[in-house]
Amino acid sequence: MIFTHGKKLLFTGDSITDCGREKPDGEGLFEELGNGYVSFVNALIQSRYPELGLRVVNKGMNGDTVRELAERWQRDVVDQNPDYLAIMIGINDVWRQFHSPFEKEQHIYIAEYKRTLEGFMEGACPHVDKLILMTPFFLEKNRNDQMRLQMDRYGEAVRELAEKYACVFVDTQRAFDDYLEHAYTSSLAWDRVHPSATGHMILARTFLSAIGWEE
Amino acid sequence: MIFTHGKKLLFTGDSITDCGREKPDGEGLFEELGNGYVSFVNALIQSRYPELGLRVVNKGMNGDTVRELAERWQRDVVDQNPDYLAIMIGINDVWRQFHSPFEKEQHIYIAEYKRTLEGFMEGACPHVDKLILMTPFFLEKNRNDQMRLQMDRYGEAVRELAEKYACVFVDTQRAFDDYLEHAYTSSLAWDRVHPSATGHMILARTFLSAIGWEE
Amino acid sequence: MIFTHGKKLLFTGDSITDCGREKPDGEGLFEELGNGYVSFVNALIQSRYPELGLRVVNKGMNGDTVRELAERWQRDVVDQNPDYLAIMIGINDVWRQFHSPFEKEQHIYIAEYKRTLEGFMEGACPHVDKLILMTPFFLEKNRNDQMRLQMDRYGEAVRELAEKYACVFVDTQRAFDDYLEHAYTSSLAWDRVHPSATGHMILARTFLSAIGWEE
Amino acid sequence: MIFTHGKKLLFTGDSITDCGREKPDGEGLFEELGNGYVSFVNALIQSRYPELGLRVVNKGMNGDTVRELAERWQRDVVDQNPDYLAIMIGINDVWRQFHSPFEKEQHIYIAEYKRTLEGFMEGACPHVDKLILMTPFFLEKNRNDQMRLQMDRYGEAVRELAEKYACVFVDTQRAFDDYLEHAYTSSLAWDRVHPSATGHMILARTFLSAIGWEE
Amino acid sequence: MIFTHGKKLLFTGDSITDCGREKPDGEGLFEELGNGYVSFVNALIQSRYPELGLRVVNKGMNGDTVRELAERWQRDVVDQNPDYLAIMIGINDVWRQFHSPFEKEQHIYIAEYKRTLEGFMEGACPHVDKLILMTPFFLEKNRNDQMRLQMDRYGEAVRELAEKYACVFVDTQRAFDDYLEHAYTSSLAWDRVHPSATGHMILARTFLSAIGWEE
Amino acid sequence: MIFTHGKKLLFTGDSITDCGREKPDGEGLFEELGNGYVSFVNALIQSRYPELGLRVVNKGMNGDTVRELAERWQRDVVDQNPDYLAIMIGINDVWRQFHSPFEKEQHIYIAEYKRTLEGFMEGACPHVDKLILMTPFFLEKNRNDQMRLQMDRYGEAVRELAEKYACVFVDTQRAFDDYLEHAYTSSLAWDRVHPSATGHMILARTFLSAIGWEE
Amino acid sequence: MIFTHGKKLLFTGDSITDCGREKPDGEGLFEELGNGYVSFVNALIQSRYPELGLRVVNKGMNGDTVRELAERWQRDVVDQNPDYLAIMIGINDVWRQFHSPFEKEQHIYIAEYKRTLEGFMEGACPHVDKLILMTPFFLEKNRNDQMRLQMDRYGEAVRELAEKYACVFVDTQRAFDDYLEHAYTSSLAWDRVHPSATGHMILARTFLSAIGWEE
Amino acid sequence: MIFTHGKKLLFTGDSITDCGREKPDGEGLFEELGNGYVSFVNALIQSRYPELGLRVVNKGMNGDTVRELAERWQRDVVDQNPDYLAIMIGINDVWRQFHSPFEKEQHIYIAEYKRTLEGFMEGACPHVDKLILMTPFFLEKNRNDQMRLQMDRYGEAVRELAEKYACVFVDTQRAFDDYLEHAYTSSLAWDRVHPSATGHMILARTFLSAIGWEE
Repeated sequence: MIFTHGKKLLFTGDSITDCGREKPDGEGLFEELGNGYVSFVNALIQSRYPELGLRVVNKGMNGDTVRELAERWQRDVVDQNPDYLAIMIGINDVWRQFHSPFEKEQHIYIAEYKRTLEGFMEGACPHVDKLILMTPFFLEKNRNDQMRLQMDRYGEAVRELAEKYACVFVDTQRAFDDYLEHAYTSSLAWDRVHPSATGHMILARTFLSAIGWEE
Repeated sequence: MIFTHGKKLLFTGDSITDCGREKPDGEGLFEELGNGYVSFVNALIQSRYPELGLRVVNKGMNGDTVRELAERWQRDVVDQNPDYLAIMIGINDVWRQFHSPFEKEQHIYIAEYKRTLEGFMEGACPHVDKLILMTPFFLEKNRNDQMRLQMDRYGEAVRELAEKYACVFVDTQRAFDDYLEHAYTSSLAWDRVHPSATGHMILARTFLSAIGWEE
Repeated sequence: MIFTHGKKLLFTGDSITDCGREKPDGEGLFEELGNGYVSFVNALIQSRYPELGLRVVNKGMNGDTVRELAERWQRDVVDQNPDYLAIMIGINDVWRQFHSPFEKEQHIYIAEYKRTLEGFMEGACPHVDKLILMTPFFLEKNRNDQMRLQMDRYGEAVRELAEKYACVFVDTQRAFDDYLEHAYTSSLAWDRVHPSATGHMILARTFLSAIGWEE
Repeated sequence: MIFTHGKKLLFTGDSITDCGREKPDGEGLFEELGNGYVSFVNALIQSRYPELGLRVVNKGMNGDTVRELAERWQRDVVDQNPDYLAIMIGINDVWRQFHSPFEKEQHIYIAEYKRTLEGFMEGACPHVDKLILMTPFFLEKNRNDQMRLQMDRYGEAVRELAEKYACVFVDTQRAFDDYLEHAYTSSLAWDRVHPSATGHMILARTFLSAIGWEE
Repeated sequence: MIFTHGKKLLFTGDSITDCGREKPDGEGLFEELGNGYVSFVNALIQSRYPELGLRVVNKGMNGDTVRELAERWQRDVVDQNPDYLAIMIGINDVWRQFHSPFEKEQHIYIAEYKRTLEGFMEGACPHVDKLILMTPFFLEKNRNDQMRLQMDRYGEAVRELAEKYACVFVDTQRAFDDYLEHAYTSSLAWDRVHPSATGHMILARTFLSAIGWEE
Repeated sequence: MIFTHGKKLLFTGDSITDCGREKPDGEGLFEELGNGYVSFVNALIQSRYPELGLRVVNKGMNGDTVRELAERWQRDVVDQNPDYLAIMIGINDVWRQFHSPFEKEQHIYIAEYKRTLEGFMEGACPHVDKLILMTPFFLEKNRNDQMRLQMDRYGEAVRELAEKYACVFVDTQRAFDDYLEHAYTSSLAWDRVHPSATGHMILARTFLSAIGWEE
Repeated sequence: MIFTHGKKLLFTGDSITDCGREKPDGEGLFEELGNGYVSFVNALIQSRYPELGLRVVNKGMNGDTVRELAERWQRDVVDQNPDYLAIMIGINDVWRQFHSPFEKEQHIYIAEYKRTLEGFMEGACPHVDKLILMTPFFLEKNRNDQMRLQMDRYGEAVRELAEKYACVFVDTQRAFDDYLEHAYTSSLAWDRVHPSATGHMILARTFLSAIGWEE
Repeated sequence: MIFTHGKKLLFTGDSITDCGREKPDGEGLFEELGNGYVSFVNALIQSRYPELGLRVVNKGMNGDTVRELAERWQRDVVDQNPDYLAIMIGINDVWRQFHSPFEKEQHIYIAEYKRTLEGFMEGACPHVDKLILMTPFFLEKNRNDQMRLQMDRYGEAVRELAEKYACVFVDTQRAFDDYLEHAYTSSLAWDRVHPSATGHMILARTFLSAIGWEE
């Protein structure tokens, strides 16, 4: 596994990351990490590698797009001095285009999305040991669905940036697609966005697989 | 319009019908009818035909399938002596097959659905002036989607029964399909089941069109 | 209908307009528009004209008279850049004269009412495509009732301003008077001011009729 | 004053009497009597005649018509063994005819009203020292108003019964009519039914005047 | 009665006056005046003299001594421009000496009490038509009780100031003493300070008697 | 001290004993004993005699007189098999005579009080190792106060019964009287009945002194 | 892994198992399984083996010892017809001996514990495919700690029964002991009983390892 | 006893001291002192020495280490001008090292602890009559337990400072150790930190013993 002893791993993102984490710190041994994939990643690492002393922090925020994340980037990410930084953002950037089609000032189109995300890379890369980029996802199997099509474009942008900046790349959409071979989307999430505990475990296992987890 | 003076129109069904109606009565001039299509139908009729004196009752119940509806049929429908009876049921019958795939004892398959619904017809037809059957619906445009496919089968069963028993038939799925030509499903409902006020107005207008509303 | 594609329609007024709308925005596809005539107008237009892409905003505020509305006019109306602007104000201006007869500093008499409203016209007319003026109303059939007499004077002022500034004019009082031919006032509103869903549908239908709704 | 030492005075009626009294007892020295005319009558008598030792009990119940009152008559009135019994009922009997015009099974028409009330007289007269009958009222000055006309008929029935059974008669409607010479109805009650503290004091003073209060 | 048409009567004091009045205004026709003697005075005057148009305001505040009252005197009394001003203060000034004997910085001794109260007189007398001074009271019949003794000294100070400044003087302690001839204190107030509705009616009647009420 | 190893001490009484104890058990090591004298007695004994293993149970009940205590005597006292039984009852028996003078059916006069208490003695004495009788009390220094006079009669009855049945006798009134030499009653209790923590500690210390506590 | 397609796995036990599960069913795809090790086991299995179709039910109950579990055994275990049954019980059986040393009637000593547990085995073995016995545990590293010593005896009893009845045996205490080599107990649980998410993940992973999980 | 008439005794510390005291004052005769050892000390002194007139103030604060206490030292201690000052701090300083091992910026190691505490001594000694230093404690009997070992070092630092500055020294750890000879730790506190009423009484009695309490 790529993490070494006594380091800090910070997650940031939107409601999928937030999951009721403690505000403002998002750190602690009990419920401070929320009840989603961040908590699962932490519990799996702590129980499997108790000697590692990994410090996990959750700085996800409900409703964030890259625009809101940019506003709190300095305080919630840079000032925290993480050694490892994981980012999963973009679901709201896409979702608002479909949920609130008339409120165009709230839509984050692909150019702004990619440009802002690249700004995060540029700023963060020199200061962290390892950047981990996770794609946004949409829990819909039909790849011709309008919102799925759009989400795939944002996921592709994440893949390109991960490659350009040599980040660890976590393809959450592919992991969910594999799962949806066996189950209909509503058994994972009523709104095709906020997953069940099983969905969060899929995220956690995909993340861990990408950073070199060994059973 | 098919309604005449001083009659009683009763709606029954699941959460789409319920919408927070008063329990147990579901009758009154203010919020007792809930805030969904039943309230809209009532407000449109009362404001358009103030002289009609139509009495509207809402006996929808959150979470009902035909099985639960059958249990309360005598008390909530027959004992109310409606002149007109509108039924929209089936969404939960289908949805549980996809949401809780392992809890098979809760699935209502097509045979039980149709048989139970036909039992309602048999019992109600002799006592009401007019039966109005509304299809269940799924707010998904992709007709090959697994749950949409299944819902269409239940809608077809409703159509067949409406024909057999000479009911007014309200094709809610078609009305939503028309709307979805212009908008993505998540602008109507996050879970593709519980619609926004616009969605309920589509239901109300489709209902009124079927019973002969004239502007 | 007078609305064209991709425009913004803003409503402002008092509690009749507010009806529990989201604060401060008053915009969105679900409950953000409140549960009164604004929501009904929106749902009727969206369901009837799904291709129109009309953006509806509710900036009503409980308890407002023209005096409070003037204080928030810049922020809640002008800064929103509506293409169409609908105003219904005046009920509290009159009501406080009868409810709190001794607190005269809170009474808005006809001169101030008309002058303030005309100020709104002067400021708004150059910037919006169409102004829609709705009369205040009192749900009392007896035209010699003291408060009804006074409300009619305020409604007359609205009519004169609508004419002077070529606004669309919506005579809500007349619409309610027609309805009250068939029903006693308490079946519309306990306090003769805050109407039931039927009352709000009367407002919505009268509004839509004035702006050229075609079934 | 007609009350003598160490007796019990029991009030019964609807929400005007209830006013948040303690359930089920409705007796005590603090808030158990509610905050309406019953509490005022009690406070005025206790403060004016501290040596009288009058025991006051409130058995009003929100929403009651004579029909509901009849159901609890034995338990809430007869079993309490009052020496003096005051009854004010009828507002809901009339109001439901106007508020819920279609729910006719809930209307209490004049014949049932008078017959039921007379049943109370027959049963109570032999057991109490003095019966006090208070008219229902409607806070509307216009005597041609439909609901006022109807309420006056019920008040007239009370007057006839009071005469027939030699009860103390309290004409609450007349007392309010006098007051409305000086003020508009909405300064007494928004819904013309549930009065302000001033309205309840009018009821209390009219009651006390009828039973021989001396300042 | 000494009040003439269209004037404003303002009450100020401590929790006995406050009684849950609306903050900050303390004015209105319903519950804004609280549920104590101020509300009773208002209801008695409005119901007895409906043509008087008296405007009543309640500016009592829970827990106030003269020291806290002095801090809000300008805002809550002077700026309100009352025609008639009624003051009842002093219970907390005395009570804290007995309840919190060690927290001496919170005790208001007689010199400070009288000096502060006189400051109110000096400031208020030129601007109001009539000042009404009400004594504080203690619901204890035993005049040798330590706290009763002390309260009587404060009441005596009020009497002297009322005389010096020609105020209407309301001897609430005497009124309660008369009542306590017939009843034990705990039937008026558990803590000998906060009276029941009957106690508040004694206050109201004593006040009205002092300002010339005629039945 | 009279308690020996591994025994059970049960307290019963009214709200002074109850003090928020856990219902129905009233036993445990944390807040189950309430926050009054029972908890203090327990904490003092456990901290002073940790080797004693004394089991303490609180079966006080808010509002009880001997009449209500008699109703639950079997279940709450006899069935608990206490080795030591402490009873403090009577405050409500007296207090209701003064607080609710007209509701005579709720008054427990001295004959019924003493007779019922003696019934408890008769039933309990054979089964417990030691009975401890505590007097009721009234926090009023003036022995001519009406309620104090009455309470002293009830305390005297307790003394007589304690003597007759050779119970440990705890004179709580005397302990409070000693304290009131130094402080005014309102610093112990606003209503002269429910004491502060200091008052409960006086009860606890008086109890412990009577059962032979040695520092 | 020992589980095969389409089977039902039921967990029962105390608060460690319960963890806020839905009552009474304890089944579903979202939060119905609570937020402890049962939910983690389910999420890990569903995400790793989506094709398995395993149905997981949680019937843990806060505060249970074997005595309470025996009372609901028929309803909550036998009537559910599980294919696999996992039991973790005993922590409260031991804990009450140390927390409530005087309330001996609530202590479940080793003989009753083992006998009751064996009764479960006898009854369940013929009807389930596989029984999984999990030891109770105490999060204290010091094996000479009194409560740890006692808990180890109960764990040993579980081990013996697992052997006798050929159950899958899950040694949770050993798993925690391994973890406590690297961390102090209070970072797992403040009370050494209710573990953090990491502690529940240790339970889940130990369970899965015992039933043959393969990464 | 070392306290003389009319003085002020102030306690400060962490949650053991706080125990729900009133914020910000922490002074009064009822629940303002919280429900822990401060309230017990006060109740014991007031009931034993009613003539002493000792004023007790509680300025404990949940979660405080010496670092947070230092921040509020001026406002909560110096500005209060106590005659006697009691300090018990250090439990959180140690506990966070074990509960949150990775959040090292929150650990207060022994050097900072002793240096900060000495700063308090230096500043306070000239202004108070008597300083009382209480050790922190850990309710664990095993002296080789890691956290107990660390807590003992902090207790030793307190002892050294008490000696150097001639303070009254209260060895709370020893008092608890004596008690734990007779009972297991979980009967005092589930988390070995926050004690039951018995534990707080041990603290109170140890404090009183140190300041010369005589029964």
